[in-house]
Amino acid sequence: MAKEDVLLLDFWVSPFCSRVKIALAEKGVAYQQRGEDIFGGKSELFLKSNPIYQKVPVLLHDGKPMCESTNIVQYIDETWPSPPLLPSSAYDRARARFWADFIDKKLFDAGGNIWKTKGEDQAAAKKELIQILKYLEGGLGDKDYFGGDSFGFVDIIAIPLTNWFFAYEKFGNFKVEEECPKFAAWTKRCLGRESVAKTLPDPQQVFEFVSMMRKMHGIE
Amino acid sequence: MAKEDVLLLDFWVSPFCSRVKIALAEKGVAYQQRGEDIFGGKSELFLKSNPIYQKVPVLLHDGKPMCESTNIVQYIDETWPSPPLLPSSAYDRARARFWADFIDKKLFDAGGNIWKTKGEDQAAAKKELIQILKYLEGGLGDKDYFGGDSFGFVDIIAIPLTNWFFAYEKFGNFKVEEECPKFAAWTKRCLGRESVAKTLPDPQQVFEFVSMMRKMHGIE
Repeated sequence: MAKEDVLLLDFWVSPFCSRVKIALAEKGVAYQQRGEDIFGGKSELFLKSNPIYQKVPVLLHDGKPMCESTNIVQYIDETWPSPPLLPSSAYDRARARFWADFIDKKLFDAGGNIWKTKGEDQAAAKKELIQILKYLEGGLGDKDYFGGDSFGFVDIIAIPLTNWFFAYEKFGNFKVEEECPKFAAWTKRCLGRESVAKTLPDPQQVFEFVSMMRKMHGIE
Repeated sequence: MAKEDVLLLDFWVSPFCSRVKIALAEKGVAYQQRGEDIFGGKSELFLKSNPIYQKVPVLLHDGKPMCESTNIVQYIDETWPSPPLLPSSAYDRARARFWADFIDKKLFDAGGNIWKTKGEDQAAAKKELIQILKYLEGGLGDKDYFGGDSFGFVDIIAIPLTNWFFAYEKFGNFKVEEECPKFAAWTKRCLGRESVAKTLPDPQQVFEFVSMMRKMHGIE
């Protein structure tokens, strides 16, 4: 695989881009990345590659574009099969896709509702986030990772979103670890993995980015 | 495969349940179905099988529950491989999953916004629905079906939702066929297929169900 065959259109703080980077790192796939100016002039390649959503990440493989991070991670798993990210049985794959979809539907939006609000709305948003994490703790059960003994698909979908928790905690004045210790232990386990540790930005920088977003939204 | 191995927890008018029924019909899988009283007393099996969403469809295969229709259709495709519903190449599968996800995110909610509203809100909802269908026409291109020459995954995800269009048209006073003739032609093509024709309820009955829902929402 020549390096120029795989190109990621990226934005540094996006947890959705981080999913793709972690998956590519797990597979040992070399790739190029190009930062997109998502607030300013989006590149022609980007707009052509994702005309409907105009969102990062976009992965171009041999020039062919793919959009939506969960979809891209599945593509990566099917295209470079070793090591496998999704489980081998159809039932376990259905369970994994269920949790990935649950995370996609719930987690980032719930976090956004914490930093975008104050007072009662923020209290409700915190309660909602904790409920989501309790459900995820149920999915995790007594396993080290969502798929069992080894880091896999659902872990890759979930872990980059936890990188924003420091910002949620600062603006929401709570601690995920106190509310959901099992989820926090899973987070630490994943952060010890090289593909994750090398990919995720510093939570302090994420906090500063969220602070800027709050100002843009007129919240401060 | 003994008939009692596959059980669908169902609600007659749900387009999401219809997806599962069409997929099982395409695969020639015999199954039992049990109607859930989604407005009344939900069964213990149902609540135990889908505790998070408490939504139909649920498919139980050898007693193991699966939730979320798009996920279930993928499971069916992986478990009973012939005839295949998803395309054979990883890139084409990524395209198919992209469109299935787009439909899941957009189409049913946009339709709901037509029958739940009036006046300017309804006009905006109709515009939104038509924009979604235009995007889908782009995805269809010049092909007979979303995957090419044969009826497949994206067709199964999309076609049951069109069964509600008669109700949207009656309440919204417009015609999908006039706005999106290519999409309407695809719809007719799919409706000619036995697995689809035998599964979908009469659009008049869907209209009556939506009328009842409007009354429940205090719209009439």
